[in-house]
Amino acid sequence: MHVFALPQVTALLEAALAEDVGRGDVTTRLTVPPGLRGTATLLAKQDGVLAGLPLLARVFAVLGAAEVAVTALAADADAFADGTRLATVAGPVADLLVGERLALNLVQRLSGVATLTRHYVDAVAGTRARIVDTRKTTPGLRVLEKYAVRMGGGHNHRAGLDDGILIKDNHLTAAGGVTAALRAARGGAPHGLKVEVECATLAQVDDAVAAGADAILLDNMSTAQIAEAVRRIAGRALVEASGGVTLATIRAVAETGVDLISVGALTHSAPAVDMSMKITIPP
Amino acid sequence: MHVFALPQVTALLEAALAEDVGRGDVTTRLTVPPGLRGTATLLAKQDGVLAGLPLLARVFAVLGAAEVAVTALAADADAFADGTRLATVAGPVADLLVGERLALNLVQRLSGVATLTRHYVDAVAGTRARIVDTRKTTPGLRVLEKYAVRMGGGHNHRAGLDDGILIKDNHLTAAGGVTAALRAARGGAPHGLKVEVECATLAQVDDAVAAGADAILLDNMSTAQIAEAVRRIAGRALVEASGGVTLATIRAVAETGVDLISVGALTHSAPAVDMSMKITIPP
Amino acid sequence: MHVFALPQVTALLEAALAEDVGRGDVTTRLTVPPGLRGTATLLAKQDGVLAGLPLLARVFAVLGAAEVAVTALAADADAFADGTRLATVAGPVADLLVGERLALNLVQRLSGVATLTRHYVDAVAGTRARIVDTRKTTPGLRVLEKYAVRMGGGHNHRAGLDDGILIKDNHLTAAGGVTAALRAARGGAPHGLKVEVECATLAQVDDAVAAGADAILLDNMSTAQIAEAVRRIAGRALVEASGGVTLATIRAVAETGVDLISVGALTHSAPAVDMSMKITIPP
Amino acid sequence: MHVFALPQVTALLEAALAEDVGRGDVTTRLTVPPGLRGTATLLAKQDGVLAGLPLLARVFAVLGAAEVAVTALAADADAFADGTRLATVAGPVADLLVGERLALNLVQRLSGVATLTRHYVDAVAGTRARIVDTRKTTPGLRVLEKYAVRMGGGHNHRAGLDDGILIKDNHLTAAGGVTAALRAARGGAPHGLKVEVECATLAQVDDAVAAGADAILLDNMSTAQIAEAVRRIAGRALVEASGGVTLATIRAVAETGVDLISVGALTHSAPAVDMSMKITIPP
Amino acid sequence: MHVFALPQVTALLEAALAEDVGRGDVTTRLTVPPGLRGTATLLAKQDGVLAGLPLLARVFAVLGAAEVAVTALAADADAFADGTRLATVAGPVADLLVGERLALNLVQRLSGVATLTRHYVDAVAGTRARIVDTRKTTPGLRVLEKYAVRMGGGHNHRAGLDDGILIKDNHLTAAGGVTAALRAARGGAPHGLKVEVECATLAQVDDAVAAGADAILLDNMSTAQIAEAVRRIAGRALVEASGGVTLATIRAVAETGVDLISVGALTHSAPAVDMSMKITIPP
Amino acid sequence: MHVFALPQVTALLEAALAEDVGRGDVTTRLTVPPGLRGTATLLAKQDGVLAGLPLLARVFAVLGAAEVAVTALAADADAFADGTRLATVAGPVADLLVGERLALNLVQRLSGVATLTRHYVDAVAGTRARIVDTRKTTPGLRVLEKYAVRMGGGHNHRAGLDDGILIKDNHLTAAGGVTAALRAARGGAPHGLKVEVECATLAQVDDAVAAGADAILLDNMSTAQIAEAVRRIAGRALVEASGGVTLATIRAVAETGVDLISVGALTHSAPAVDMSMKITIPP
Repeated sequence: MHVFALPQVTALLEAALAEDVGRGDVTTRLTVPPGLRGTATLLAKQDGVLAGLPLLARVFAVLGAAEVAVTALAADADAFADGTRLATVAGPVADLLVGERLALNLVQRLSGVATLTRHYVDAVAGTRARIVDTRKTTPGLRVLEKYAVRMGGGHNHRAGLDDGILIKDNHLTAAGGVTAALRAARGGAPHGLKVEVECATLAQVDDAVAAGADAILLDNMSTAQIAEAVRRIAGRALVEASGGVTLATIRAVAETGVDLISVGALTHSAPAVDMSMKITIPP
Repeated sequence: MHVFALPQVTALLEAALAEDVGRGDVTTRLTVPPGLRGTATLLAKQDGVLAGLPLLARVFAVLGAAEVAVTALAADADAFADGTRLATVAGPVADLLVGERLALNLVQRLSGVATLTRHYVDAVAGTRARIVDTRKTTPGLRVLEKYAVRMGGGHNHRAGLDDGILIKDNHLTAAGGVTAALRAARGGAPHGLKVEVECATLAQVDDAVAAGADAILLDNMSTAQIAEAVRRIAGRALVEASGGVTLATIRAVAETGVDLISVGALTHSAPAVDMSMKITIPP
Repeated sequence: MHVFALPQVTALLEAALAEDVGRGDVTTRLTVPPGLRGTATLLAKQDGVLAGLPLLARVFAVLGAAEVAVTALAADADAFADGTRLATVAGPVADLLVGERLALNLVQRLSGVATLTRHYVDAVAGTRARIVDTRKTTPGLRVLEKYAVRMGGGHNHRAGLDDGILIKDNHLTAAGGVTAALRAARGGAPHGLKVEVECATLAQVDDAVAAGADAILLDNMSTAQIAEAVRRIAGRALVEASGGVTLATIRAVAETGVDLISVGALTHSAPAVDMSMKITIPP
Repeated sequence: MHVFALPQVTALLEAALAEDVGRGDVTTRLTVPPGLRGTATLLAKQDGVLAGLPLLARVFAVLGAAEVAVTALAADADAFADGTRLATVAGPVADLLVGERLALNLVQRLSGVATLTRHYVDAVAGTRARIVDTRKTTPGLRVLEKYAVRMGGGHNHRAGLDDGILIKDNHLTAAGGVTAALRAARGGAPHGLKVEVECATLAQVDDAVAAGADAILLDNMSTAQIAEAVRRIAGRALVEASGGVTLATIRAVAETGVDLISVGALTHSAPAVDMSMKITIPP
Repeated sequence: MHVFALPQVTALLEAALAEDVGRGDVTTRLTVPPGLRGTATLLAKQDGVLAGLPLLARVFAVLGAAEVAVTALAADADAFADGTRLATVAGPVADLLVGERLALNLVQRLSGVATLTRHYVDAVAGTRARIVDTRKTTPGLRVLEKYAVRMGGGHNHRAGLDDGILIKDNHLTAAGGVTAALRAARGGAPHGLKVEVECATLAQVDDAVAAGADAILLDNMSTAQIAEAVRRIAGRALVEASGGVTLATIRAVAETGVDLISVGALTHSAPAVDMSMKITIPP
Repeated sequence: MHVFALPQVTALLEAALAEDVGRGDVTTRLTVPPGLRGTATLLAKQDGVLAGLPLLARVFAVLGAAEVAVTALAADADAFADGTRLATVAGPVADLLVGERLALNLVQRLSGVATLTRHYVDAVAGTRARIVDTRKTTPGLRVLEKYAVRMGGGHNHRAGLDDGILIKDNHLTAAGGVTAALRAARGGAPHGLKVEVECATLAQVDDAVAAGADAILLDNMSTAQIAEAVRRIAGRALVEASGGVTLATIRAVAETGVDLISVGALTHSAPAVDMSMKITIPP
């Protein structure tokens, strides 16, 4: 079952169409002759990495526009150049006009995420580090944005609070420290989930390894501290670097030997990729 | 009825909590003692303009966390500096941990929109130009993002396809030109809606004025063309400049005398404002 | 996107079918042989104006009755005489029996609205007055009833609280009078919305014109007062007459020169047009 | 569980508020000072029978307007005269303005149903006949309109296709006649449901009695035929008269001795009762 | 409209798929090649009575798996032996893997209900007693489980609180006894519903008959008491035995001459029938 | 956020109340005086382990019965004896009667799951084996039934297809065997999820260990085979036994040294625990 077919994605498309269409497109009702047909072209207006193209067809399906046909001219994960024709959409002009804005808003945004992810992935090429996302996603769009991260070459951290165990600083305080928290978590955790713990100091790292953590998140450490943590952990747990990593600094972090680097900006601050969708009407 | 009380906003919060919580927060269930209480502080980590703070309380209400109390330390539309304490949230730690991520994701994102809008508004200070938004919003978040634009000092363009008439290039092609399209629109439009038409040439501008347009959108014109259009329209219609305007160029556009400048980037590419939410637990 | 395809209409049909069908049609299950097919005919049993015929097909689609085929014998906005065959519906008898009541309830009701509207429209023929509806619609059916008004030849007032600005008496009291209210509204209103204000006296009318109202609603004025108001406004704002207008009085109101006459009864008190739907089963 | 607390009624109120409010009440946002409080009075503007008054409180509850307090000055099923004050509603003016239209639309419409029902009930006073409703209700409002019928003194026929067995002419054709249809229905019907059959001829009536019908609906018979049918049935089944009964003819029908008279107009054509809701703001 | 097409069943399937699929089937995404097709066979692993087979197709339809084709090899209500092939399901392997668990969970459970019902029905063969179900059903599955009871040869008691009148001990206490309760119920009940009353003593039975009960439920009486009640009622009301009836005791109860025996275990404690669904992939 | 507060549980309660209440409780409306108050007692009628008691309060909350107060006399996970009073519920009798059936249906069913789980857990006491559940749960009730398993002392396997990786026989066929499937899964899996693989032969077990499986499910192996697999795996992966395990055989399986034994019957075939809920009305 593809991510675009998930019911939460359909629900998002329905909500997004409702917020845009409201009680109906009054401009189109007044100015577009019934039955007029045309073809829209999705055009890239800057370079980028594509994500979300299959949503074009989904948008028009949710709209109930059965006569609209989408032809993809590129595939998700493809890099494209400014000026590339990415897809055409043929059908009743009134339907095209109602669906185009949502379609564009989605593809531009998700391609923005994929494009930014690709920059990070390229920056660590040749190291063992994977680029992973966070839960700092747009409310309502998480499964889509995490898909876009994969299209950019990144990997996914947990999708929510229920499919992964990540003991953070507040949990540590509540539980009484790294050792106690790990004991509690390992005792009750479903056997299919690994246990990851956030550490802010090297002492905590030592405790985490001793208490059997499966993964250790190094929170806002310097590159030197990260390198020392990697040395101490020595392969006994996965190592994730997190906090304040930028395109300028990520190579150095990756070269410490960490397994994972998580970057919130992939989803909370990626600018949209500029695209346009022009309709032509055959004479 | 405040925007935050609209049912579509409640539905968004429910969907966003469901996507994050899934079948429950397993880490918290395993590591946080039942009944433990604490206080979280929302802290700005860079300068900005606040938008969405009342959503903190709404998130915890939708979560059913009746014991959580939010204390606002600033108000929407306030400018704040890095390091400002914006709010405190007191209650059961398990509830705070479940709601904090969504609360942060919303406030950071909306404050990002307000902050960017404020920059544009400040850039045109002293001119007659209003900064207005577009329909290039995040799917599902439109009423919130348009609210954030207002908090930044901007104004709202139509909220959707049903509360405004904007005849764009594709409508013109379908209807047979500016004059025909305006005749059709003015004949059938609900009497409370103005009729706006997009023009790409000065000839179209002349036609639009002649045909009684209430507002004219100048699409991707140069500053010189805009100035000439303003001169020709001479107050007989509202004038909106649109397309490719940046912080670097907007002052010049505003000084042509246009009434409105629309900026898609306000909502499609505003980076989130960095904030943190740390929980303290009383001894 | 046609009004019948709007998601709120689909939701209405789903709710209405659920309220009628409940846990299933027990009579049909017990008495109609599986697989039996037939044809129902929609027959007018009095004169009227048609509205909502395309909902027949929508009802059976929402029911999931994929084998039902609707053939329209008339079109919305058509006037029809008692005895006219309006449509046939062919398919499994069990499906026809489950959907017929809702289909009839809708078409009879909407045709009732269209028919009553047509009477009002005919009564003002030759004047400049448009007949417009109000927000006094059946809860849940607004977009459908406003469509029926258009089929009858009427025009639509705003569809809700968000797609028009109408300052009524209570707003005036709250804002401190006509001048203050108009100043506030014109300062913050989205630029695509006109500003209309309700006036109960000629003095208020003068203030409204002076303060730049785009439209003025004359509330419950006598025909003489209306005529005087039209004279004073002199084309500087649209003029709407409202309150207590009947088929007996509307001609006189229209002849004062008002632009618009709003009539609540179009939607709150239109009697249903009688129709029947008989099924024949081929031997 | 009161009818007004049923989830389908809450869903109706939510849908009806959404269709009216859309993205927010722009007039009130612009003209009503935040925090302003007032009191609205619900006033009858013609005589009638009340139904739906408790929906006032439900509307404001669904709106989330926790500070609004409703004081009932009359009770459902009460007859009231023109000029009667029916309720007061106190709270924030902005909330009152958003909820008043839906509240009025509902109470006026349901009181219209109750008022018309009361006329029919009064017309048959002293006979054994009960006035009953039909499935010709407003889509989405069935449980409310059937409640209004009870407030008017009428009784309810089945609420839908699942809580009663009514074999109509089409079922008879499909099943092969009265005797066969009744045999099938009685064999499989849940034991708590009576079996009613529609008869258009006296011969069918004889068959229905012989086949053990619990109730017999006489479809569009003359008063003389109805009297003959009552004589033949002789108390062995309930007798319902249906079809074309008006206030002018119902007394004669009732005096034939039928048990039930069903009247579709109670719900499909009852005009709304005129009411107003004026807000006063304390100085 | 078949029970499987009811909207509440579709809603159940959607909820059940959502709870199983969550954010997507990660195992299948990682290990099954896109486009791979196969055929699953539904195989009985013990004897039973089939119920719910058409839900296979419904599950894959709700999943949006348009390429999946189900071929039924048996029909609901059929008895089957261990080892019987009940259906095949062909289509994309990824779709089969996502839908199979829900499909199996439903068919196994409903067949469990049908199988247990058949045992009870067989045990009373030759008597006048019908086996009927209760409201002790799985929350959310009532219409399906009541359908399964019919497939097993049982009959349905009321489906909910609104399609039957059953005055139970608590109602009797509240109303002031059998006579008063029956008077109230018969006075206000919709004419299509019979009135049934629960009696715990023979004295109550006498009262119930005298007050005109249509049906009498004998609650937890001994077989001897039931026989005496049947004798006293003498055909003037339907007689239902209820409470603590098992396969070991039901024959004796049926031979008392009761019309109905209700058995809660049919739906609250029927074990699932074991089935498997193996996928084969053509070479 | 407690499992009972999850939105999917609220949705289940809403759906289940709707299916039972329909258009309202007609018996209670006719026979219970408005305003009558009473107290219901939840009484165990056989021994068991409690699960779901907090749902009592949730049911009445969802019903909107604000005056109902629940007093718990026992806690989830408690073992109780026949005759134990588990809770009292005080409030309006009409509310108690509407909510009691759903409340009972839930608590009886979940306590059935907890009770059966406890029997399995007791049977393996002193071994290292954990009892775990499966995805063979009641559609719509998964999070509740998995909670009930925990109350019985069991542990949870993955909750759905997205929070665990379990490569089953069909995946192996599709992927080309154990080694290939594990390579693919480990390469793309989110780093927080372990990778488990189902093995039917000891050769597959060897491959799985070699390819780095985190956990190995032994499918339908004999006790001897299981013991040999445990020996070969030698602690390098978690070992789960699955398939056909009963209370009679589970001890022997546990003594082989497996880490986990999964039992589908915990959720697909647990009989409900008998309870009653009697209402007393104060004089």
